[in-house]
Amino acid sequence: MADEKINFELCQGGVTAPAGFQAGAAAAGIKHKGKRDVAVLYSTAPAAAAGVFTTNQVKAAPLLLTMRHLAGGRARAVVVNSGNANACNGEQGMEDALAMALETAAVLGVPGDQVVVASTGVIGQKMPMDRVLEGIRKAAGALGPDGGADAAEAMMTTDTTPKEAAARVEIGGRAVTIGGMAKGSGMIHPNMATMLCFITTDAAVGPGALRRALKYAVDRSFNMITVDRDTSTNDMAVVLANGLAGNREMSGEGDDFFLFRGALAAVCEKLAIAVARDGEGATKLIEVEVKNAPTETDARLAARSVAASNLFKAAVFGRDANWGRAICAAGYSGANFDPDRVDIFLGGEPVARNGSGLNFDEARALEILSGDTVKVTLDFKSGAAGATAWGCDLTYDYVRINGDYRT
Amino acid sequence: MADEKINFELCQGGVTAPAGFQAGAAAAGIKHKGKRDVAVLYSTAPAAAAGVFTTNQVKAAPLLLTMRHLAGGRARAVVVNSGNANACNGEQGMEDALAMALETAAVLGVPGDQVVVASTGVIGQKMPMDRVLEGIRKAAGALGPDGGADAAEAMMTTDTTPKEAAARVEIGGRAVTIGGMAKGSGMIHPNMATMLCFITTDAAVGPGALRRALKYAVDRSFNMITVDRDTSTNDMAVVLANGLAGNREMSGEGDDFFLFRGALAAVCEKLAIAVARDGEGATKLIEVEVKNAPTETDARLAARSVAASNLFKAAVFGRDANWGRAICAAGYSGANFDPDRVDIFLGGEPVARNGSGLNFDEARALEILSGDTVKVTLDFKSGAAGATAWGCDLTYDYVRINGDYRT
Repeated sequence: MADEKINFELCQGGVTAPAGFQAGAAAAGIKHKGKRDVAVLYSTAPAAAAGVFTTNQVKAAPLLLTMRHLAGGRARAVVVNSGNANACNGEQGMEDALAMALETAAVLGVPGDQVVVASTGVIGQKMPMDRVLEGIRKAAGALGPDGGADAAEAMMTTDTTPKEAAARVEIGGRAVTIGGMAKGSGMIHPNMATMLCFITTDAAVGPGALRRALKYAVDRSFNMITVDRDTSTNDMAVVLANGLAGNREMSGEGDDFFLFRGALAAVCEKLAIAVARDGEGATKLIEVEVKNAPTETDARLAARSVAASNLFKAAVFGRDANWGRAICAAGYSGANFDPDRVDIFLGGEPVARNGSGLNFDEARALEILSGDTVKVTLDFKSGAAGATAWGCDLTYDYVRINGDYRT
Repeated sequence: MADEKINFELCQGGVTAPAGFQAGAAAAGIKHKGKRDVAVLYSTAPAAAAGVFTTNQVKAAPLLLTMRHLAGGRARAVVVNSGNANACNGEQGMEDALAMALETAAVLGVPGDQVVVASTGVIGQKMPMDRVLEGIRKAAGALGPDGGADAAEAMMTTDTTPKEAAARVEIGGRAVTIGGMAKGSGMIHPNMATMLCFITTDAAVGPGALRRALKYAVDRSFNMITVDRDTSTNDMAVVLANGLAGNREMSGEGDDFFLFRGALAAVCEKLAIAVARDGEGATKLIEVEVKNAPTETDARLAARSVAASNLFKAAVFGRDANWGRAICAAGYSGANFDPDRVDIFLGGEPVARNGSGLNFDEARALEILSGDTVKVTLDFKSGAAGATAWGCDLTYDYVRINGDYRT
């Protein structure tokens, strides 16, 4: 994934793993009766913050508000609800998002413009604000240093599992921890953040460096996953860094920064893969590696296109070694390559060489396709660049889930 | 669809409706035992010809050969097989495509480089050439002025119905007929021809004018349909014009040309809608109209994006009036518009105004979504340009068909 050698270790926990972060959640009745649907995340110390946001022209109100709040590069808290996206609600939507920020700020005693607001769920329905505000108060009341898992659960919509990741890395002699939580699992397509992801760290890092590190990490993780090519109106990935680890603040590039960036990318990659694996209705993770492409852009375009192809995804669901659909999807991706040089591997098994099919072992292919992770590799033999994308199979359950979501 | 007033009438029949065209088909055992899978189409008189082809970087051998053959702007015959795409077969693929052209040319007594060759089916499997060549001889033996329907049937893969269309138009005092046949129904996405389509006409029209008319027609028909966003390696639309109607040959623009172009576009539109409606597993046609966009490009991008959205397609299958997914898909389409001005209609029913949801009649919406054609209109209120795209719902059967296609 990363080009540098990184010395970090993944560890247990999520957003409350780093020092000085607390989280709490509540069931406010927005989603389903009794399910957690509001979470508050709080940094006990001032924190630098950065975010990346959906490229969709239709942006939800909380996202627009958060973009504004993060312009200053600082944030103290995050408030997030599931069950309602607060998108396409006109001026009322912005008023409601602002009310969420102000309620959170009041309860926590932090500035209103240092609250990140996020919503996920149905588009175009008014927010039940009484319940939301009550939920914020309850979630803030439940704040604690072990609340990360509850917060991760409160963000879920059609997700079947909460997604958490954390990593530890030594920077300037200090133990730095990075923790994250994410939610999927429909409207996922690499065209920016692609879902909700919140990352915390006790590293000391300036807002500019934090922004660059986040962009690097997201480009190699969330921007390389796809469930259904639908880029949501609400996607964001936000990182808060409160500096409690006590390392010398990172601002420019350098060894410390590369270490931090690599560990951050590892946390994002773990979360992104979890989102792809938990794609709506998915039974398998699909990993697509493109090797030896002319440029990284070519490799990324081709890998994402294969991972996003409905036809290839359906073939993987049906355990059909239909590699022709993979090369076809690379072909319409916009990537530059010579089709007559491409070698294709399913798992480790060669299935095509120089753009033509090989007589491969169908029983072995079926075995590979029966695993819970299916890897396909396209070797372009036309350069030295590579990229990996992740997706999931297209199943009956995807259709079932999305044919009857709103009602 | 067309901006001019067109005076034509759609009529019965397909590629053998115009004067001087014959077609024949045979069951050669490429597809399934007993099903027609080879067709030959023949013009008794010399004909101008033009084609449009897939933009996929991976192009099947027959397509590459046909592009070469049509460079001269003339063709006398078409040979097409279903059951095998002859794509990703290396040099052998090109030899096999050439052998199909030469066999057809020999049987019909026409120049080999005036034969259009097309294949559709599985990618990456060698062509069973003995059976293919035998099939060509049998299909040519069955040639006749009523063979259009058999030829349309022989092109089918996962199509459930053959697709034919024809139109009559008076040009310069002469009755001109245009006939066409097309096949879908997976790997359909607007990025050029998107499937196989063959059109015949007895109009007298020069190769340059024919090419321009075809591009105009395809841009408004086949390039506006989508089933699964997968652009095939084999897509082509080819038109042959043999001049037997006796009109003065059209070469530049002018009233005659606009009349012809409009009728050609109508034939293509009818075929394209038939392809979309017969999308793999589809139960409904989805028609997406974008009105009052700043430019036609914006309208086209947005309309196609909505028609292609897995989430919106699944919602239509589930008869869920989830208009939020439509505006979301327009938002990530790359089209330029102001989300806060958009009005959305389902059938004739207003469901959103100025980007916000309305309290609409759910019973009426369910009724509209229960029809076999579901129309959604997005009024951008930001200009005067418009476009219509066609797609189909995403169903369990799409997954079933494509989870088990090759085996």
